[in-house]
Amino acid sequence: MEDHSIPDIIVGRLPLYLRGLLYLSQEGRSVTSSQELGERLGISAAQIRKDLSQFGEFGKQGTGYKIDYLVAQLRQILHVTQVWEIIVVGAGDIGSAIARYQGFANHGFAVRMVFDNNPAVIGIEVGNFTVQDAVILSQAIQETGIKIAMIAVPASQAQAVADKLVEAGIKAILNYAPISLNVPSGVHVQNIDPVTHLQRMTYYL
Amino acid sequence: MEDHSIPDIIVGRLPLYLRGLLYLSQEGRSVTSSQELGERLGISAAQIRKDLSQFGEFGKQGTGYKIDYLVAQLRQILHVTQVWEIIVVGAGDIGSAIARYQGFANHGFAVRMVFDNNPAVIGIEVGNFTVQDAVILSQAIQETGIKIAMIAVPASQAQAVADKLVEAGIKAILNYAPISLNVPSGVHVQNIDPVTHLQRMTYYL
Repeated sequence: MEDHSIPDIIVGRLPLYLRGLLYLSQEGRSVTSSQELGERLGISAAQIRKDLSQFGEFGKQGTGYKIDYLVAQLRQILHVTQVWEIIVVGAGDIGSAIARYQGFANHGFAVRMVFDNNPAVIGIEVGNFTVQDAVILSQAIQETGIKIAMIAVPASQAQAVADKLVEAGIKAILNYAPISLNVPSGVHVQNIDPVTHLQRMTYYL
Repeated sequence: MEDHSIPDIIVGRLPLYLRGLLYLSQEGRSVTSSQELGERLGISAAQIRKDLSQFGEFGKQGTGYKIDYLVAQLRQILHVTQVWEIIVVGAGDIGSAIARYQGFANHGFAVRMVFDNNPAVIGIEVGNFTVQDAVILSQAIQETGIKIAMIAVPASQAQAVADKLVEAGIKAILNYAPISLNVPSGVHVQNIDPVTHLQRMTYYL
């Protein structure tokens, strides 16, 4: 089904295509072109056609893409036809923002539990969640079988948290701590670090 | 000085190298190798050497890189020897987290002002900032000459905010709203969207 020979950079663009298509769909559109989608996303039409062709034949020359069909296909390719539950570790500003974030619904994700190791934070309500003691983190992951976690703890604690998560069975980590995590192969990490993103732009300023 | 022929994907890795080097420096190290840095970052040594060679000769074969020197060079290349002031638009959970974020100091950035258009939020304190009325946003940008903004408003408002920012002189936008922004050429956008990052990992699960 899934082809591991497809470069990660192409995989990384699929969520952008999916998002762009969903916006077009919300606007009541049923058909689009690689040209139009490309203009929305700032990606060339040729790149979009080339990327999608890696996964199959999704549109006909001259008639464009049926949006609903392509959305369904991309959701299958990205494995977000199901809802993935997520554990959030760290209930500071960032962790709380994630716990309250409304944007996961309908995109394949739902926060399930929020943990912290700070006694002053354990037990408080964050959005719809009561912050739980990180002491039971491993147990909770094993009992629920949850595979995805977000790390929103200080950089100094992030690697230790990641080690614990991986040991308990987590396979994908969204890392908000400004540090590169070492994880075994087979575990996926994506970093969200505003400094890195900003520096990528100041290069051009 | 700056070479626009260098692919953006290479530019995008330079902040990661800088971050990795700073951690090594904090650990008291003064010399490193592309091999060691690569292991830290999950990037091949060959890739690091190839990327850096685009910008000059930073290390000698066999002796590795002097960390302080390479840090200084990367800061110059990325234009973060100065401190860039930042305007935050949107004082919800994400905007507040950014305003309170301690990780910008020493990396070339400082939040200067926080804006919102919600009367319930205008005037409240967020970290060290008083949330200001977005009505004076354009004026504030023009008076301060600030070039970088972060958008942390709902998706439905993000494009209108971006238009206003660009018109007032903003040249780089870090976008937390889950929508692709249309901006004129010469304005740079980086998106931070947890859904996109998560979907990039579920592909492999």
